[in-house]
Amino acid sequence: MAAVEASSHAPTPLLKDELDIVIPTIRNLDFLEMWRPFFEPYHLIIVQDGDPSKTINVPDGFDYELYNRNDINRILGPKASCISFKDSACRCFGYMVSKKKYIFTIDDDCFVAKDPSGKLINALEQHIKNLLCPSTPHFFNTLYDPFREGADFVRGYPFSLREGAKTAVSHGLWLNIPDYDAPTQLVKPLERNTRYVDAVLTIPKGTLFPMCGMNLAFDRELIGPAMYFGLMGDGQPIGRYDDMWAGWCMKVICDHLGLGVKTGLPYIWHSKASNPFVNLRKEYKGIFWQEEIIPFFQSAVLPKDCTSVQNCYLELSKQVKEKLGKVDPYFDKLADAMVTWIEAWDELNPGGDSAKLPNGKA
Amino acid sequence: MAAVEASSHAPTPLLKDELDIVIPTIRNLDFLEMWRPFFEPYHLIIVQDGDPSKTINVPDGFDYELYNRNDINRILGPKASCISFKDSACRCFGYMVSKKKYIFTIDDDCFVAKDPSGKLINALEQHIKNLLCPSTPHFFNTLYDPFREGADFVRGYPFSLREGAKTAVSHGLWLNIPDYDAPTQLVKPLERNTRYVDAVLTIPKGTLFPMCGMNLAFDRELIGPAMYFGLMGDGQPIGRYDDMWAGWCMKVICDHLGLGVKTGLPYIWHSKASNPFVNLRKEYKGIFWQEEIIPFFQSAVLPKDCTSVQNCYLELSKQVKEKLGKVDPYFDKLADAMVTWIEAWDELNPGGDSAKLPNGKA
Repeated sequence: MAAVEASSHAPTPLLKDELDIVIPTIRNLDFLEMWRPFFEPYHLIIVQDGDPSKTINVPDGFDYELYNRNDINRILGPKASCISFKDSACRCFGYMVSKKKYIFTIDDDCFVAKDPSGKLINALEQHIKNLLCPSTPHFFNTLYDPFREGADFVRGYPFSLREGAKTAVSHGLWLNIPDYDAPTQLVKPLERNTRYVDAVLTIPKGTLFPMCGMNLAFDRELIGPAMYFGLMGDGQPIGRYDDMWAGWCMKVICDHLGLGVKTGLPYIWHSKASNPFVNLRKEYKGIFWQEEIIPFFQSAVLPKDCTSVQNCYLELSKQVKEKLGKVDPYFDKLADAMVTWIEAWDELNPGGDSAKLPNGKA
Repeated sequence: MAAVEASSHAPTPLLKDELDIVIPTIRNLDFLEMWRPFFEPYHLIIVQDGDPSKTINVPDGFDYELYNRNDINRILGPKASCISFKDSACRCFGYMVSKKKYIFTIDDDCFVAKDPSGKLINALEQHIKNLLCPSTPHFFNTLYDPFREGADFVRGYPFSLREGAKTAVSHGLWLNIPDYDAPTQLVKPLERNTRYVDAVLTIPKGTLFPMCGMNLAFDRELIGPAMYFGLMGDGQPIGRYDDMWAGWCMKVICDHLGLGVKTGLPYIWHSKASNPFVNLRKEYKGIFWQEEIIPFFQSAVLPKDCTSVQNCYLELSKQVKEKLGKVDPYFDKLADAMVTWIEAWDELNPGGDSAKLPNGKA
């Protein structure tokens, strides 16, 4: 009974001309060698962080464009202030300059994982599957993704909801080094994630989750302007909350617009834990602030007349200023940067507002 | 950083004197042979459905009590009207007569499943683990149950929410024959569930799910009075919605009282699909009605002064009468039966109201 059941038996479309891979980095991209069979058909957008005079080597045979800080400043002018420096949050510049429908973003310390049978996992293919199949945000299916081969909606799942919602985001997971915060890293330095959970599921409407930017794909046309990774790193009081910020904003907007967000497969192999002491310094304000930020997002309501991602995002920036500005002046600055981000997005993507959804439905 | 991390390394307590196994049946319980190593330490409550003059054989060595329709009528008197006849919904009589803290209920066509390594799965042990560990209904953890060995809360999970909530319900899944409705059974007669998903997760607050009664455990002290399986079968216009009804009511009350509901592991092996034509006859009104029932439960709000499960349930019965009574006179009758159920529960369980939660928190 799954609406698009047939698609799970068809070969997965490559979306070669419709997807860009965005990689933030400060070093030579040797990690691409392992991804070669999977990434070589795609165009890469490399966002070089840190010293722009440094040369980043990209292995032969990849089709790429590379932007360093000088490029960002040149392209965005004064609006470049919204793009973080010395933090992987700079990756969102890549989302903005892409002209493709889909984005896959991955960290340069992530390698190809193996499934329990020992087969190398084509993470990108699984993300594409996730994005091309509907989500089920309005009711939970106990057998997980009902559109996967061998699965369906279970008894008691309302038929009117089986069409599902368009999928905006596919959040992948990590084997080996789990994505822990600094306190947990400090307490459990040896913990490794070895559990392969063979599931993709939709995060229900109204539920927030910690979105990690390490292994993430999204439909740029549906949700791109909400994927702003905030102000982190150089000159900012906080780091390592870039993807979290994007995740909270994105989820509130997807819930409002009736779009779906999936998490689970695919896994990548995360090779290297970052330094927990450095992380603690970057995170500690976030650890306090998130106790106020999360209730703020949990109770945020967008007005019905916000029918495009841009409108929703600008409305959210007002609410951030009004409600989180009291927590710390940083949020005033962040709210302004959110506006700048949308201005820059619209400048680089004229005729945007692509996700205009007249009835709040995808 | 998981609050009860140590417990995941300790052996799982058997809860031998604190748990009853409830089995509704119309036939000899040969299926218990396969469960012997796992169930023999426990007390069984067998609820015999259908003709009370028929003898049900229980394999030697099991400690059990058996109730047939005559027993139910004798014990409950006129209140026996709230217990369904000729439908496995009668199982909830077992919940009522139990004096234990925990209940595990299982269908008699469910056998011991194997995990991917070929090991027999002790379903009851996994349910006990699930019930003894907190749930996380207020925020989604992308690595699933943060209290499992080798897992934890991921970066960005608010520290104030890491204590979790008390777990009221553990919903297990099924390998082989999936729990499909009649239309899906008819369309996919050969589909089998072969995917073992190695995860336990909390159904987020505010999200409903289709609860199946085939392989289910719960904390009777925390949520027992909400586990009413409704009016189904003989003399009723509907069947196969008994567990769904209980699941919707239970989830709304758990959300209100701050209790958690888990789904996922353990799996059992479901041996035999029921007849889809018979099922269609039982289900077809439910298929229409659920389109109105689910929005009703999704928007149901319980007043703050409802601080016990019984109070919540009686309030819900009023709302059912008021709002669903318009859908069909059946719901008037069901709302009355909900009240009768609570009266019968309190009669058999004097000094109840055990889940009184003064601040709406467990």
